[in-house]
Amino acid sequence: LQTKLPAVGTTIFTVMSALATEKGAVNLGQGFPDFDCDPKLLQAVGDAMARGLNQYPPMTGVPALREAVAAKIEAMYGRKYDPAAEITITAGATQAIITAILAIVRPGDEVIVLEPCYDSYVPNIDLAGGVVVRVPLQPGTFRPDFDKIAAALTPRTRAILVNSPHNPSATVWSAGDMRKLEELLAPTDVFVISDEVYEHMVFDGEPHQSVARFPGLAARSVIVSSFGKTYHVTGWKVGYVAAPAPVTAEFRKVHQFNVFTVNTPMQHGLAAYMASPEPYLQLPAFYQRKRDLFRAGLAATRLKLLPSEGSYFQCVEISGVSDLPEAEFCQWLTSEIGVAAIPLSAFYASGFDQRVVRFCFAKKDETLRTALDRLAKL
Amino acid sequence: LQTKLPAVGTTIFTVMSALATEKGAVNLGQGFPDFDCDPKLLQAVGDAMARGLNQYPPMTGVPALREAVAAKIEAMYGRKYDPAAEITITAGATQAIITAILAIVRPGDEVIVLEPCYDSYVPNIDLAGGVVVRVPLQPGTFRPDFDKIAAALTPRTRAILVNSPHNPSATVWSAGDMRKLEELLAPTDVFVISDEVYEHMVFDGEPHQSVARFPGLAARSVIVSSFGKTYHVTGWKVGYVAAPAPVTAEFRKVHQFNVFTVNTPMQHGLAAYMASPEPYLQLPAFYQRKRDLFRAGLAATRLKLLPSEGSYFQCVEISGVSDLPEAEFCQWLTSEIGVAAIPLSAFYASGFDQRVVRFCFAKKDETLRTALDRLAKL
Ligand SMILES: CSCCC(=O)C(=O)O
Ligand SMILES: CSCCC(=O)C(=O)O
Repeated sequence: LQTKLPAVGTTIFTVMSALATEKGAVNLGQGFPDFDCDPKLLQAVGDAMARGLNQYPPMTGVPALREAVAAKIEAMYGRKYDPAAEITITAGATQAIITAILAIVRPGDEVIVLEPCYDSYVPNIDLAGGVVVRVPLQPGTFRPDFDKIAAALTPRTRAILVNSPHNPSATVWSAGDMRKLEELLAPTDVFVISDEVYEHMVFDGEPHQSVARFPGLAARSVIVSSFGKTYHVTGWKVGYVAAPAPVTAEFRKVHQFNVFTVNTPMQHGLAAYMASPEPYLQLPAFYQRKRDLFRAGLAATRLKLLPSEGSYFQCVEISGVSDLPEAEFCQWLTSEIGVAAIPLSAFYASGFDQRVVRFCFAKKDETLRTALDRLAKL
Repeated sequence: LQTKLPAVGTTIFTVMSALATEKGAVNLGQGFPDFDCDPKLLQAVGDAMARGLNQYPPMTGVPALREAVAAKIEAMYGRKYDPAAEITITAGATQAIITAILAIVRPGDEVIVLEPCYDSYVPNIDLAGGVVVRVPLQPGTFRPDFDKIAAALTPRTRAILVNSPHNPSATVWSAGDMRKLEELLAPTDVFVISDEVYEHMVFDGEPHQSVARFPGLAARSVIVSSFGKTYHVTGWKVGYVAAPAPVTAEFRKVHQFNVFTVNTPMQHGLAAYMASPEPYLQLPAFYQRKRDLFRAGLAATRLKLLPSEGSYFQCVEISGVSDLPEAEFCQWLTSEIGVAAIPLSAFYASGFDQRVVRFCFAKKDETLRTALDRLAKL
């Protein structure tokens, strides 16, 4: 079978998690917590199952969950979305992103991605028959370069994918960044697909700058988020999309013929749990403490710390400890030091190597301490 | 936003379920049970959640569940699939089908569908840039017409979608049918996407003729099935794909960038539950009894019964009771008689009306009796 995705192998997250398991390494590679969610959330799902909520939910998602999402977005970002016509529950953020791309991008349309970027974006655009236009973030700082983005816009540009807090760099867009994007796109019909899965992990007292806050962006945006990241249940595969009604209508046409619907008891459980906003309101402080613990430990090594403004990732520059290419360094670190990490080169089509690797600090304190003990040997 | 799927509205199943709810009708439209699954299965999922199995599972699926699927296929159909390289867990059968199509069908490739067919197939092919080639099943009997299929094969044919037991007609392919397909495709490189979600609902002592039983078909086939249909948990959205290793490799490239993974606790729960084959071994008798109860009641009406050889559907010819077009009849039946059904025209691109509608009998006996009482008024 001739491949339709010649550049695609097994995703780096799977590769590194498998190696970590094989080598008994502390897995700071793939982004997921090693602690469990709130038992109340498990109870709420158990209750839903026991109440017999095990058949197809509505195609667009359980109404109470769509309402909870709309209430959250309004409370956090001040924009109203109609739960009936503008919110759709998805089988995780990855499924949300490919569905948005399949709904919006026509064969030959250009789609701008800002590199480094999450590894599903480019194959998703390929599958839609779109033309990937890669614009680098600024070297070293990973800030958006609006001159380069402006230069990449053409009459064939259909969409731009943005992602703040940013995976893998852990940088966060400021309100000024968002306003610049808003101005840049004002004269165009370009859609924004805004991957905001780390929206509740922005540190140091900064607010998350959702595109929902910027009317000129919100009107053209598909906002993607994830319950898995927010509530420590990455394996449940539940996310959502918020988008203006006409965009949502097209999104749902594809969604209904991609997964049709999303796990019923998990949706009911999440809806009940979201009746209280505390869990997501506490999340920035929860992860900031872990970030600080992890950074304090890393500061004692010869790895060079990059900023971590948001997300649950911490990048480090490796040239002080190794001459290996990033990817080989990560293999070596996993096998020999017992800590798995992800090379940033996995987020570039070219495999660009800038001597930076990514750790995930969504881990128990004791896991982070074990990893730091091992990294101290570097 | 200009639509990429101009022919697509909201799927008929959603439309009719919404109308049934609005009108307080007995919903025999959308195919899902109104009874609950085995409490043991709920317990197994609850146990998995309590054990902390709430983070990403392996991209290909939980190993124990892939092994259970391979063991079942071997026990039932005598073909070995390697759980590591040939079985993948999906977010339901719908996601399995679009993923197979996106992995196999290149822009311009022809794909044969046998009409009437499930309403996701054609939009799925459209999204892959494929060319849909519609071949009708035989009028009245819904049997495959191999002369017409042979005539539709061209050097550009990339794949054919087959579905037995068949939704909506409830017909089942015989071993002879499968052998004819095998012979017809022998000189070609055409792939088969075999939607076997009703594999455990074949009646009257007949075995299910999975393509897995026919080596010439199995070697070119993506088999799609559903845990939701088999275990009465349609809302859990868990299915699987079995395909030869090289096809699975391509399938997984797309799968990992579509949903990445599938609900972890549900996978563990299903794996534990499948340790016993009884539930699926008992399914044909379980549904045959419901079919017979429902048919006995319908026989007393002026609706004309078509055969129901498999699946949980029963089709009836409506000309004895109404002159309305099928789609309007279903609206009327839902609103005025209080029983929802699905018009077969929803399974044809042309909206072809043959005066036939589909009922789902995956319902409690009392639900079927209530529906039959109402239908007796016809
Ligand atoms: C979807 S698998 C990996 C999780 C993740 O988002 C990451 O590690 O970047
Ligand atoms: C996926 S929604 C409908 C369920 C079904 O398969 C049907 O009713 O035909």
